[in-house]
Amino acid sequence: MAQSAVIRPGHVCLRVLDLEAAVRHYRDRVGLLEIERDSEGRVYLKGWDEQDWFSVVLREADHPGMDFLGFKVLGTDALARLESDLNAWGCVTERMPAGELRHCGERVRFQLPTGHVVELYAQKDFMGNGLGRVNPDPWLEGVKGMQAQRFDHCLLYGRDIDGNIALLRDVLKFDLTEKVVDGELVVAAFLSCSNKAHDIAFVRHAEDGKFHHASFLLGTWEEVLRAADIIAMHDISLDLGPTRHGITRGRTIYFFDPSGNRNEVFCGDYTWYPDHEPIIWTADQIGRAIFYHDRRLNENFLNVVT
Amino acid sequence: MAQSAVIRPGHVCLRVLDLEAAVRHYRDRVGLLEIERDSEGRVYLKGWDEQDWFSVVLREADHPGMDFLGFKVLGTDALARLESDLNAWGCVTERMPAGELRHCGERVRFQLPTGHVVELYAQKDFMGNGLGRVNPDPWLEGVKGMQAQRFDHCLLYGRDIDGNIALLRDVLKFDLTEKVVDGELVVAAFLSCSNKAHDIAFVRHAEDGKFHHASFLLGTWEEVLRAADIIAMHDISLDLGPTRHGITRGRTIYFFDPSGNRNEVFCGDYTWYPDHEPIIWTADQIGRAIFYHDRRLNENFLNVVT
Amino acid sequence: MAQSAVIRPGHVCLRVLDLEAAVRHYRDRVGLLEIERDSEGRVYLKGWDEQDWFSVVLREADHPGMDFLGFKVLGTDALARLESDLNAWGCVTERMPAGELRHCGERVRFQLPTGHVVELYAQKDFMGNGLGRVNPDPWLEGVKGMQAQRFDHCLLYGRDIDGNIALLRDVLKFDLTEKVVDGELVVAAFLSCSNKAHDIAFVRHAEDGKFHHASFLLGTWEEVLRAADIIAMHDISLDLGPTRHGITRGRTIYFFDPSGNRNEVFCGDYTWYPDHEPIIWTADQIGRAIFYHDRRLNENFLNVVT
Amino acid sequence: MAQSAVIRPGHVCLRVLDLEAAVRHYRDRVGLLEIERDSEGRVYLKGWDEQDWFSVVLREADHPGMDFLGFKVLGTDALARLESDLNAWGCVTERMPAGELRHCGERVRFQLPTGHVVELYAQKDFMGNGLGRVNPDPWLEGVKGMQAQRFDHCLLYGRDIDGNIALLRDVLKFDLTEKVVDGELVVAAFLSCSNKAHDIAFVRHAEDGKFHHASFLLGTWEEVLRAADIIAMHDISLDLGPTRHGITRGRTIYFFDPSGNRNEVFCGDYTWYPDHEPIIWTADQIGRAIFYHDRRLNENFLNVVT
Repeated sequence: MAQSAVIRPGHVCLRVLDLEAAVRHYRDRVGLLEIERDSEGRVYLKGWDEQDWFSVVLREADHPGMDFLGFKVLGTDALARLESDLNAWGCVTERMPAGELRHCGERVRFQLPTGHVVELYAQKDFMGNGLGRVNPDPWLEGVKGMQAQRFDHCLLYGRDIDGNIALLRDVLKFDLTEKVVDGELVVAAFLSCSNKAHDIAFVRHAEDGKFHHASFLLGTWEEVLRAADIIAMHDISLDLGPTRHGITRGRTIYFFDPSGNRNEVFCGDYTWYPDHEPIIWTADQIGRAIFYHDRRLNENFLNVVT
Repeated sequence: MAQSAVIRPGHVCLRVLDLEAAVRHYRDRVGLLEIERDSEGRVYLKGWDEQDWFSVVLREADHPGMDFLGFKVLGTDALARLESDLNAWGCVTERMPAGELRHCGERVRFQLPTGHVVELYAQKDFMGNGLGRVNPDPWLEGVKGMQAQRFDHCLLYGRDIDGNIALLRDVLKFDLTEKVVDGELVVAAFLSCSNKAHDIAFVRHAEDGKFHHASFLLGTWEEVLRAADIIAMHDISLDLGPTRHGITRGRTIYFFDPSGNRNEVFCGDYTWYPDHEPIIWTADQIGRAIFYHDRRLNENFLNVVT
Repeated sequence: MAQSAVIRPGHVCLRVLDLEAAVRHYRDRVGLLEIERDSEGRVYLKGWDEQDWFSVVLREADHPGMDFLGFKVLGTDALARLESDLNAWGCVTERMPAGELRHCGERVRFQLPTGHVVELYAQKDFMGNGLGRVNPDPWLEGVKGMQAQRFDHCLLYGRDIDGNIALLRDVLKFDLTEKVVDGELVVAAFLSCSNKAHDIAFVRHAEDGKFHHASFLLGTWEEVLRAADIIAMHDISLDLGPTRHGITRGRTIYFFDPSGNRNEVFCGDYTWYPDHEPIIWTADQIGRAIFYHDRRLNENFLNVVT
Repeated sequence: MAQSAVIRPGHVCLRVLDLEAAVRHYRDRVGLLEIERDSEGRVYLKGWDEQDWFSVVLREADHPGMDFLGFKVLGTDALARLESDLNAWGCVTERMPAGELRHCGERVRFQLPTGHVVELYAQKDFMGNGLGRVNPDPWLEGVKGMQAQRFDHCLLYGRDIDGNIALLRDVLKFDLTEKVVDGELVVAAFLSCSNKAHDIAFVRHAEDGKFHHASFLLGTWEEVLRAADIIAMHDISLDLGPTRHGITRGRTIYFFDPSGNRNEVFCGDYTWYPDHEPIIWTADQIGRAIFYHDRRLNENFLNVVT
């Protein structure tokens, strides 16, 4: 039992093939708010219920995938301490200057053992969720599409899952909340720095540095249906759902952005507490673990990554 | 625009391979109430919110499928008139004696052009929905499993869909509410004798007299999720769902009873009115018509019938 | 058991004190679509899922209330027959010319024994629900506010409830679905011309011709919550809810338009069938009958009418 | 921004006038599981999704109210440190021996400035949630009544709210998440030791040591309706709801146990993060803050405490 100085996944930077098509997808269908663009042409967005300046950055590139994933930490002291702990653990870190991402303070960047670029930061400008801090209404009218509340987590694919778990548990003090095991081999791991059932997850995969999905939070199973309808109305490529995960109990639907990056919108995992023991899924039940209703994996879900 | 003297689908008799396994399925999982058994060993069940004595009859047999489907009509006068109209249309009818099904009056039995046995009846004993008629509560506590409210409709497969439509429209005064067309060919038809989007449906198929599914009503999309969870918890064979139909807008899940008969539980079609025009689905959009989110048919759904 | 040639409540004309304030309420908050205005300045609106040209007419006047309530019937033959039946019953009828309401055919107007003006019509121009009749999506994007699907029914107050019941049952062939009785006295009555639990309702009241509420259909209990939130966000005067009715099982919320006319948005009554017996509520349980959770009436609900 | 070594509210001990009536209420209506009874006759219960041995203790007494509220902390080191910090802050603490509550380790007991007895503990035996830790299903079948998932928080009434806030923030490192202010005066405060919007709350009141309600978590707004129906079916005394809180955004219903202790079942607050600023409600909007839809307080809610 430990406590993490990491607060939450605070942003993800995704590569997209056609920037304007991507903006239409994340803004008009997923329902993020477009906040601004920077001099490099990157587009910043956020979920309506997020308080900080942005949580999604889109960068036009010639192949899709994830540039980096950022976590907010409790303060500059915590940032310095975690940087030092990462170095002590053998992780090379790099300081990205304040302002390199608009409205974001210095970021400590490093690579996970699976090759994914992760960064920690302590400061991002406050924008608010549009409801104000005094006598706020419970939700914001006029949000588009699926009305995603926030960027929630990512699932990443790579080889050294054990190394990732070790780094996140030992250095960043995440909890392992659920894992899928094939005998002694951990084939998937779900980790939390909060009371959420997962803030990041990994699946063992032959190729490092791969991106499986970025997930956005909805409020209810009825909103998952609404998202599914919107996916069909606008001919968005569906992966699978609506369904339930065995892992995390989440109610979910998976689909692809126009560049082939997978998205999830979901609701309803349980409250994780640090005195709980991790839940274990055995490989023979991996179908049920991932897609609880179907009880079998589709090939897409295992193999299509960016 | 016409009005049907047919009130509703009132019962379906299904053949099952193992009677006790079937009773456990329909009673403990679908959540029907077991009412009684007759001297032939047939088991009678009903949904908790149905007022008449029974709506599902299970008969043990060496192959699965549907024995017959019964519709309740407005009274004995209507029954006699419809019998005469059927005869005038060229349909041979047979009177099944009162009591042949327990607590059910005389039934006028005939064959649809697709070979399915359908019967009309005017009288069935009143059992009530357990809430009483004076100051009733809105629902019944203690119902098991998926808590299906009622038997709702059947989908039947056979060759002469056009004949079925003609008989149901011209003689029984059903409305055609939706149809799937491939050019001039009607490949699926949905018909209503009420304000429901469908009380019976047909799909064109090379073999006559086949049974696709019996459907049971739930109250909400959340109850569809609950049904999906129960399907997984009890390792019930899933066909597809939870999802939405384009046709009827229903939110649905399909699964199989232990004998291989397909069941649906669903909620939420729209209100049909007799001054509306039928909705038309084109064959190129049949995926979306049937499974709105996936926008493609699974082979099971088209070909597995009993 | 009978069958009504009346299809549904097709329109209601409400008097409002400030037309533009009323339009903002019904269009931006209730979520009706504004269709057009006529030469008298009346505003025509409809729910997004209604097929005919309009269902709500707003007329500016110096006191609020209901001008008239219109029911659509099966055709011009049915209209003529019902007119004749009304006359035979002792009801004076008046023919309103086609076009007096825009896009609406001739209307046969009469007074209920409680003094309310009701009219029957067989024809109104088709507008459609915006989804088309070929391969339609299940719902319309971009609808405002509570996103009411349709005008559903009215509750009217007056003295001769028994007379109203007699006229609606004997002449128009409505079913009595539920009633509240105080000994022999019927104090409230709910009647249906369809499979809905009510298409019109009456409460006994010392003054004739009073309007209690016009009701609009929502899809789910979650949408009732959303409506409640919108009521609070926009400081709309709330009467009561969200709650459930014992009568009809509806899940509901009541509020007032800017002129003081009461509105309801609700979801979820049961399927009425003509072979069912009416449900009876006893006066000592009237609290539970109306507001099932609170089990007591608020004074507003009984006494504030327009 | 800080992090609390307090994990969650772990148990509440309530005084009830009639033990068996109370057990029937909490077990059969709220849906807690009855776990065991101790030699003093106290009854231990838990929500189905709680992992530790119990979360509610009922003690028969001649007046209702709360004996004490217990919080679980991260471990015995944290317990010793918090005890020392409490003493340093001027709080007298008492060690309750392990086993004084069945299956619970030593508890450090102290009084809040408002006179409420609170205790901290680091150990309670593991019972599990009935689903197992290996390949678990998402929920437990057969739970009764409202199917409350867990004991969630308490609202307590007393004079020195400022003292409570100071103790909880400065010593136990809770966050203040929301407050109601009348000018400079804090009249209500909501505090969290987790990512929940509240783990404990206080309202300023003329008398110290009073208990307003114990709250239990449900999963959805539909389950809140179900709870409301159960309240009516079983003639449980209703306080108010179903409705939404402005504070915490929770969707809720309040009712009383047979001894007059208030209960809440609710769902759906937001995710609190420690870098957020507290939300402020002004006294003129206190109606909206508490009951968002009604926008006015009922007298009961302010004045009826045990």
